[in-house]
Amino acid sequence: MFSVTVRDHIMIAHSFSGEVFGPAQRLHGATFVVDATFKRPELDADNIVLDIGRASEELHAICGGLSYRNLDDDPDFAGVNTSTEFLAKVIADRLADAVHAGALGEGARGLTGITVTLHESHVAWASYERDL
Amino acid sequence: MFSVTVRDHIMIAHSFSGEVFGPAQRLHGATFVVDATFKRPELDADNIVLDIGRASEELHAICGGLSYRNLDDDPDFAGVNTSTEFLAKVIADRLADAVHAGALGEGARGLTGITVTLHESHVAWASYERDL
Amino acid sequence: MFSVTVRDHIMIAHSFSGEVFGPAQRLHGATFVVDATFKRPELDADNIVLDIGRASEELHAICGGLSYRNLDDDPDFAGVNTSTEFLAKVIADRLADAVHAGALGEGARGLTGITVTLHESHVAWASYERDL
Amino acid sequence: MFSVTVRDHIMIAHSFSGEVFGPAQRLHGATFVVDATFKRPELDADNIVLDIGRASEELHAICGGLSYRNLDDDPDFAGVNTSTEFLAKVIADRLADAVHAGALGEGARGLTGITVTLHESHVAWASYERDL
Amino acid sequence: MFSVTVRDHIMIAHSFSGEVFGPAQRLHGATFVVDATFKRPELDADNIVLDIGRASEELHAICGGLSYRNLDDDPDFAGVNTSTEFLAKVIADRLADAVHAGALGEGARGLTGITVTLHESHVAWASYERDL
Amino acid sequence: MFSVTVRDHIMIAHSFSGEVFGPAQRLHGATFVVDATFKRPELDADNIVLDIGRASEELHAICGGLSYRNLDDDPDFAGVNTSTEFLAKVIADRLADAVHAGALGEGARGLTGITVTLHESHVAWASYERDL
Repeated sequence: MFSVTVRDHIMIAHSFSGEVFGPAQRLHGATFVVDATFKRPELDADNIVLDIGRASEELHAICGGLSYRNLDDDPDFAGVNTSTEFLAKVIADRLADAVHAGALGEGARGLTGITVTLHESHVAWASYERDL
Repeated sequence: MFSVTVRDHIMIAHSFSGEVFGPAQRLHGATFVVDATFKRPELDADNIVLDIGRASEELHAICGGLSYRNLDDDPDFAGVNTSTEFLAKVIADRLADAVHAGALGEGARGLTGITVTLHESHVAWASYERDL
Repeated sequence: MFSVTVRDHIMIAHSFSGEVFGPAQRLHGATFVVDATFKRPELDADNIVLDIGRASEELHAICGGLSYRNLDDDPDFAGVNTSTEFLAKVIADRLADAVHAGALGEGARGLTGITVTLHESHVAWASYERDL
Repeated sequence: MFSVTVRDHIMIAHSFSGEVFGPAQRLHGATFVVDATFKRPELDADNIVLDIGRASEELHAICGGLSYRNLDDDPDFAGVNTSTEFLAKVIADRLADAVHAGALGEGARGLTGITVTLHESHVAWASYERDL
Repeated sequence: MFSVTVRDHIMIAHSFSGEVFGPAQRLHGATFVVDATFKRPELDADNIVLDIGRASEELHAICGGLSYRNLDDDPDFAGVNTSTEFLAKVIADRLADAVHAGALGEGARGLTGITVTLHESHVAWASYERDL
Repeated sequence: MFSVTVRDHIMIAHSFSGEVFGPAQRLHGATFVVDATFKRPELDADNIVLDIGRASEELHAICGGLSYRNLDDDPDFAGVNTSTEFLAKVIADRLADAVHAGALGEGARGLTGITVTLHESHVAWASYERDL
């Protein structure tokens, strides 16, 4: 199995609902360093997993749609705790939609899986992996 | 599949038995930067993998039971080479016990796997992964 | 010259005022990984720069006073852009006050300088250094 | 499952053929930081995955056969795009050959898989994993 | 003293002339992860060292003028060993020119120094620092 | 000012004497990732700070003289706390001796300073800098 990973980041504000979150129930924020991994069993005709330039651009666009915002105000996340693990899934699903829509090129149709990891600090991170 | 990882570290002395270890047969030591990863297929009612605060505390307690010690003197490890890969299993198993005992909260009962990685330097690390 | 550095982090929300900040004028947030460096020309009687345990605790306490908050609501920062470089100074000055108050121990009175670096992402960080 | 990883690096020149590569069609170069991971379900009689010293030496020898070269001139890669993902497979396959030839010791015969990751920058890396 | 640092990277081919370089006399290549640090004693009216967005763009433009090239063919470097330390100076000097030309904004005229660090691998890097 | 840094590591056991060290008074150990920085105001005739190959070998030799040992048994350190900051000085002084003895080549005689940083974990490190 082959994979290629590209890194970007978002800077957001949010708050959590639920006693389990302790002080993180208050409005605070985070930088999430975002690693998006694309997998496939065999390389394409160019000997690559996918066009890494387009992958980086697509990830950057998705990050741009989340960054420099208070996620508490985003209607997509109404009533939802935007935890690190949940946001990993949001980004992975948006990347999957982009792959299916052809935004990463025809070659990317050979992809079989995506994993997204969000690093919230030097001591904590979360991932979500899914099939394509 | 979702996962959350928290990081801590231990600083220990030990020696190894067996020609394969070369100079590491002498009493020496290591800092192990410890990454504990908790996995589950679906998020809980709070939209998280587990209470990351409790996970960090439990990992810190387990690290505290190993750190600032000469592992050659620990009766738990009598006659055993406390290699990086073996210590990864020790910590993973202790975390698994904690999950089963409810120490990480009721929500953590949905966890299906644990991976522990110990970084012994900038050029070497080892992991152990197990089901829950 | 000797130095010792300890690392911690804060997670905050804030917004900036001024066209130069572009989208960061909106309420957003950041994780700042905080490195605090303590300097002195000669080691103390214990052969150290300072008690690293107390330094870590003091840094953690100062970080705790900033973290999981919307800095826009902090009266200490009213009318001020809480930029990364400014927050580096805030933390450095609070550490300097702690040193002068004896909170880092008598040995720390030999310190001659403090540098604080705040990493806001994998591609940007800021520092402030001052004498003691 | 246990694993051990060792890190080395190569510095090479190459160019790519195909419009998808954009400016990377020109002769350029890369440092690849190489992580080689060896896996097995149970530890050997010495309580380790493999002799980490021999693993490091073998990886270093394989890296030495690639580094400080223009890969466009290497007959092994004639007419092939030496992409990061492809080079991960090259190194993984050479390590697998070494394991099968006994170069990593008898204990290494219990290995069941190898993963090689090549980091081409702070924002991009690629992996190849295979069975043994 | 305050500083702000931004990170980018270049991927280049080159060769060195001189016995001291050993195998690096052959055509090879490198990824240089580039950290550009801007210093000033006091913050500007916006409470910042400089417009980090413009600093990132200017660094990216300078990196773009070097990357995906064989530096042996660059007339600017004819007869010169493009060592890591030399390239750090090239980038620092180009940034200094940009500051003096006003490309980083009027606020950047308060800058007093620039340091550029180029990481050539996980085990080697070089820096050049200069006044403005 | 130019600088070049190379990285290596040591793995040692030791204990500390003095109440300030708390649990670190017990025999324990550490991995120290060692960064050695060499400085000079102008590059040499080869356009470099020093022969990085020889610098790496010399650092490796000095690290080899410390690693895989219990520093409590080293007569050089009798009655001394081998703190991270102290060991940074030990390595810096040994590198300075090597420079003066010509072990890093004639070109290295132009060096004006050395800084050594020892990373003891992901959250703590210490440095010593000196003139040559």
